[in-house]
Amino acid sequence: MTNPLLAACPAPARSTDRLLLGHGSGGQLMAELLRDVIAPHLAAPIEDAAVVPFAGGEAVLSTDGFVVTPRFFPGGDIGSLAVYGTVNDLAMRGAEPVALCLAYLLEEGLDVAELHAVTASVAAAARTVGVPVVTGDTKVVGRGAADGIYLTTTGLGRRLPGADVSAVRGAPGDVVLLSGPIGSHGSAILSVREGLGFEADITSDSQPLHGLVAAMIAAGGPDVHALRDPTRGGLASALNELAAASGVGIDIEEAAVPVPPAVAAACELLGLDVLHVANEGCLVALVAAGAADRVLAAMRSRPEGARARVIGDVVAGPVGRVTARTLVGSRRIVDMLVGEQLPRIC
Amino acid sequence: MTNPLLAACPAPARSTDRLLLGHGSGGQLMAELLRDVIAPHLAAPIEDAAVVPFAGGEAVLSTDGFVVTPRFFPGGDIGSLAVYGTVNDLAMRGAEPVALCLAYLLEEGLDVAELHAVTASVAAAARTVGVPVVTGDTKVVGRGAADGIYLTTTGLGRRLPGADVSAVRGAPGDVVLLSGPIGSHGSAILSVREGLGFEADITSDSQPLHGLVAAMIAAGGPDVHALRDPTRGGLASALNELAAASGVGIDIEEAAVPVPPAVAAACELLGLDVLHVANEGCLVALVAAGAADRVLAAMRSRPEGARARVIGDVVAGPVGRVTARTLVGSRRIVDMLVGEQLPRIC
Repeated sequence: MTNPLLAACPAPARSTDRLLLGHGSGGQLMAELLRDVIAPHLAAPIEDAAVVPFAGGEAVLSTDGFVVTPRFFPGGDIGSLAVYGTVNDLAMRGAEPVALCLAYLLEEGLDVAELHAVTASVAAAARTVGVPVVTGDTKVVGRGAADGIYLTTTGLGRRLPGADVSAVRGAPGDVVLLSGPIGSHGSAILSVREGLGFEADITSDSQPLHGLVAAMIAAGGPDVHALRDPTRGGLASALNELAAASGVGIDIEEAAVPVPPAVAAACELLGLDVLHVANEGCLVALVAAGAADRVLAAMRSRPEGARARVIGDVVAGPVGRVTARTLVGSRRIVDMLVGEQLPRIC
Repeated sequence: MTNPLLAACPAPARSTDRLLLGHGSGGQLMAELLRDVIAPHLAAPIEDAAVVPFAGGEAVLSTDGFVVTPRFFPGGDIGSLAVYGTVNDLAMRGAEPVALCLAYLLEEGLDVAELHAVTASVAAAARTVGVPVVTGDTKVVGRGAADGIYLTTTGLGRRLPGADVSAVRGAPGDVVLLSGPIGSHGSAILSVREGLGFEADITSDSQPLHGLVAAMIAAGGPDVHALRDPTRGGLASALNELAAASGVGIDIEEAAVPVPPAVAAACELLGLDVLHVANEGCLVALVAAGAADRVLAAMRSRPEGARARVIGDVVAGPVGRVTARTLVGSRRIVDMLVGEQLPRIC
């Protein structure tokens, strides 16, 4: 006989019936959305930028939406973030930026002074990088149909000579390099948003990384196998994506990963794993062991990479598994972020 | 003595203190926003696509946001519109599409079935055009911070051999060609949205125009001086923009502009000037007189241009002025759309 209570209870919705905030997290839910909803229709990308044959050479394209709140935060704002974020996605494919496109999505009633400020920041960041904003678009939606200002930036890049960088090129024996401390961007956003009181101590690491990548490619050429900027989903998700794409395992040393004390304190207070916290100004690289010293020296010669260091090794397997040797000497599995740690982080 | 009523009345806000819906209209308010807010920081574009030197050749870039409501309408949906709209912006610079980028901005709680449908439409439209979607981005914002699905598409294009198309190249003596009937897209959207009952009679003209442009360039080469797809702001705004950019005047014959009867009826009912109504599948061209017959014949050889015709002439001046000979034989000035005729049209 049917239990009437059970019969009256509707079947639970599948996790993919309705979109969740976590589907935009850069973690596992997002990977599922891409696999189950986007990939059946469009080729599923495993990189944040695509290489396209063009005019006898190779063009690199990347597009990225920016919805960060608040729009102005310690160390940056949505305008500079949109420029540096797209420049960095190009750089992660070994490309230097050539041109940027900028699409505004604006809410009716927005204070135009803020639009001035954000646009000035876009322009200043573009000058810093030395890349022109060549075209754009402006859409305005009614009150309540957006939250102030969203930006989408798209970058056209040119492959650096000697670069052969791809998420699939990691190989057992490669050394894992990290360009600098992690956790600052996500902690800075969260601190401002939640009024945690760390605002004075934590500044977003938002910065362009194309110069750092150019130095790395000049030093290591094709021995620089894979690059990733650990944004949404943090270092843990970036390493998991590289391990899965390359069909390798990755072992890191937790003690080797630099975390600023204020970031560590904020993560402790909030119960966050700093390996899942977003960054906007560092990168992780898988580099052939024979070239690691040269590439590391090149990184350290630049301010963005002054604190670069070896954090681990690429191993044959288990394929797709990332582990960390903890501070007490045991090994733990480093998973991708599953749901949403912090929405509207970038 | 100060009038106490006046003293208590705050100074009126300038029109640019707060963003208005009309700032996204494609008309005069939008031109002012670009001039007063964007241009002081970033070079002000006069085209919807930019030509960038690349790898010894020329790359053409265009970016466009899509916020149309409803997302599914007679003749199309936001997915196909986003593909065709960007393909058309590339075509208006004489370029064939090479690759597309797609950025989603999604609202939490969205029915994932709709995301499937929109993505399938993007994929089908990309196949129709024969251009791959090579990279993308997905952002999810909380409930109430967007309205379902917004898309931003960016296209990379390659200049067609012999093309030298630019909004600044119109010259006195040029012939003005229009590829087909106007007003269908805006009227279709409005009819569905407002429940006007024209839904069965009016279908959006949303379609890709790159094949039509290729035929025109093959026939006319550099004698095809300027191209514009009259989207937001309609044919009136497109002609005004071309006249201003080229430093010429444009005279058209109202009777020569084809308007489907149902579109004319809808515009009459709503008090809209059909010259201000948005289109998504036609183009206007300024072509040297000597090449006009050849280019017109090439247009008519294709389904998108089967109803192409001459609608007017380019004259020396007054510079930037567009006039129409009306049905009763008098001349009227055709202004740009000033504010907002219809928000979220594309």
